[in-house]
Amino acid sequence: MSYQHILFAADFSEGALQVGERAKEIARPSGARLSLIHVVEDVNIGLGGGYELLPVLSELPDQALSQEARTALGALAEKLGLKDAEQWVVNAPSTKEGILGAAKEHGADLIVVGSHGRHGLALLLGSTANAVLHGAPCDVLAVRIR
Amino acid sequence: MSYQHILFAADFSEGALQVGERAKEIARPSGARLSLIHVVEDVNIGLGGGYELLPVLSELPDQALSQEARTALGALAEKLGLKDAEQWVVNAPSTKEGILGAAKEHGADLIVVGSHGRHGLALLLGSTANAVLHGAPCDVLAVRIR
Repeated sequence: MSYQHILFAADFSEGALQVGERAKEIARPSGARLSLIHVVEDVNIGLGGGYELLPVLSELPDQALSQEARTALGALAEKLGLKDAEQWVVNAPSTKEGILGAAKEHGADLIVVGSHGRHGLALLLGSTANAVLHGAPCDVLAVRIR
Repeated sequence: MSYQHILFAADFSEGALQVGERAKEIARPSGARLSLIHVVEDVNIGLGGGYELLPVLSELPDQALSQEARTALGALAEKLGLKDAEQWVVNAPSTKEGILGAAKEHGADLIVVGSHGRHGLALLLGSTANAVLHGAPCDVLAVRIR
C-alpha cells in the first residue's frame, strides 16, 4: 500500500529544494526508493533549414545541456542529502514525456513535481505539473512553490 | 515541515476508498489532522425562466442533495475508520471552488483528490484534480484511481 518508488522531477528553480524535501518526507516513513530526474528538452535545430547564421558549436547543444544538467542535478541531490539516490538526466521532446517515460520504465508509483501557481497565459499554456497529471500512470504530488 | 491539515476531497465513486486510504497513509506519520469534504454543485434552476413544467419538489433540490451527500460522506468516513474526522458537505458553483474555498478557510496544506485518468473530450474539459491543481493555495496529491 505504501509508495515503493518515488520519482522527484527536479527543475533547477529556487523551489527545487522545497519540492525535494517534500519528496524525502513522503519517502521516509515507508523507506521508499527515491530517484531524481531532470528532463532536457530536445533542441530542434533543423539543419539546412535556413540557419546559416548559427554560430559553430563545439559540441551538439543537447550534449552540452545534458552535461550541465547532470552537474546541477548532482549538486541538488547533494544539498538534499540524496547523493546516493539514482539520478537520471533524460532527453525528451517535452518535460512531460521525459518524466512519464521514466516513471513507466522504472515503475514509479508517485511523481513529485513543483507547481508554480501560474496565472494568465502561462496557465492557459499549461504547467509541467498539469501536463504530468494528465498522462501519469501513477499518483502525482504537486508541491506548491512559495 | 510535515503536513498539518490534510483535506480529502471525496466523491462517491468506486475509487473513493482508495483515495481515502492514501490520505490516511500520508497523515499517519506526522499525526496530521485529516478532514473530509464533498462538494454539492449548485443546481441552477432559474425560477421564472420558462420552467413551468418542473415537478413540484417537496424540498429544494440543493437541500435534498446535501442531505444525501452527508449520509454518503458519513458512510465513507466510517468505512475508512475516520468517523471522528471532520466532515464537510458544501454547496458551491463548482467542485473546484468548493474544495479550494474549504482549503483556504480551514488552512489545509494538502488536498488529496482522486484522478480518473480521463481521455479525449473529458480530458479537454478538464478533471477535478486538474482544476484543483490550478487554483490550489497548497500542495495537491492526485491519486490515480485503478
